Amino acid sequence: MADGFITAAPAATRTALLLAYPGVTAVELFAVQYFLAGIPGMVPSVVARSLEPVTGDLGAVVLPAFNFATAPLACDVLVVPGGGPGTVAAMKDPDVLGFLRSRGAQAGIVTGLCTGVLVLGAAGLLRGRRATSHWLVRDALLPRLGATPVAARIVEDGPRLITASGVSAGLDLGLALVRRFMGDAYAAKLELLAELHSAPEPGENPAAGTLREMFAPLLSQAEAAADSARATWPLSETVALVQPEPIRG
Amino acid sequence: MADGFITAAPAATRTALLLAYPGVTAVELFAVQYFLAGIPGMVPSVVARSLEPVTGDLGAVVLPAFNFATAPLACDVLVVPGGGPGTVAAMKDPDVLGFLRSRGAQAGIVTGLCTGVLVLGAAGLLRGRRATSHWLVRDALLPRLGATPVAARIVEDGPRLITASGVSAGLDLGLALVRRFMGDAYAAKLELLAELHSAPEPGENPAAGTLREMFAPLLSQAEAAADSARATWPLSETVALVQPEPIRG
Repeated sequence: MADGFITAAPAATRTALLLAYPGVTAVELFAVQYFLAGIPGMVPSVVARSLEPVTGDLGAVVLPAFNFATAPLACDVLVVPGGGPGTVAAMKDPDVLGFLRSRGAQAGIVTGLCTGVLVLGAAGLLRGRRATSHWLVRDALLPRLGATPVAARIVEDGPRLITASGVSAGLDLGLALVRRFMGDAYAAKLELLAELHSAPEPGENPAAGTLREMFAPLLSQAEAAADSARATWPLSETVALVQPEPIRG
Repeated sequence: MADGFITAAPAATRTALLLAYPGVTAVELFAVQYFLAGIPGMVPSVVARSLEPVTGDLGAVVLPAFNFATAPLACDVLVVPGGGPGTVAAMKDPDVLGFLRSRGAQAGIVTGLCTGVLVLGAAGLLRGRRATSHWLVRDALLPRLGATPVAARIVEDGPRLITASGVSAGLDLGLALVRRFMGDAYAAKLELLAELHSAPEPGENPAAGTLREMFAPLLSQAEAAADSARATWPLSETVALVQPEPIRG
């Protein structure tokens, strides 16, 4: 369930660029994108060397909206997700590093997560800064890139740099960005909507009521869809899943 | 950082099908895909109505590997991620429901997360089963689809059905699948690699040592990349990020 419709969408007034490269870990990219999309007016766009489909390290294929030439020079948020060997290749790629230097200079907030932080570092953007990264590489790599490693899930070093630790911390990075743009109360709503750091029971969470109200129309539509789906079920059909073992051809 | 290379890849021997549809929440799809890709021999493939790019509810664009006709009839894992209005549309789509019925009947494990569980339910696959879903819809919708709602992040109902709660629970669903195929010790490694439910400090976690060993070659490559990147930095260049405010054109 998405937060893109948590408020009526205002005109696009903010831009986020998310870097994709061969071998990027898709869940890291889309974790940040999920929360960015919940910031009113924010348009998160994937950018890559070319507009050809980019294959992530797990076979995910994503289509970029911009290439390095067409991506806006100024953006509100720049995001560099991590990966494995493809990320090491990105650290050595002059086009990637040049792109990050040019957009990094003008971006409102520069962010990286997991090994993506190393690509920011290779571009020289972390010199003299405090940063985190995946625990497997953080302490060995960040000092080589002029940065001070910090063992934390999220490190906010001044107003323009946020780094996150490995993989699942992409969700935390996304939430930190929501907090920056929209404040704590709004971020708490998205946190509950994403069921991040929360039990499925919203309990006394004050954000729950607002969300229930916001999603009431969608809930009604889903109820109607459920009722009409049920009406089409063949009454006599054996439910496949009741079989203890799969039927294999 | 990805788990696809946590072991030398054996020949593809297992198939996972992840359903994409217009309006699907990309992070949910790729959270499960991330962990599936860490199961040796498992090939997670995106399947959709056609091979055209599918646009998620937040503007993510993914390319399917199979359409409803070409997707294998038998798979080891079937995954239905959630979304917003697009998911309600999927609940009413006879082609989607027919696809889920045909693959669900033969799948080793049928899984759904967030509102994707409702699509499984609309297909009739949850009749008489215990399931969870996003807290906003779970209690109202699941009984209408013949299922008993359970307030939990993950519900494993027998050997062939796993459901997960909202959005970020896609990571937990992925991990539950790893545990099913590979056992607890292996799952603990992927959990630490993904920094899921863990501090960035692996501390005394016995999986940390194995991971350090496994990733030593990648670490060396990254160190070399960092050193050569640093050598190209212009010594006199002002580091853009040191500026407290972005330079706007």
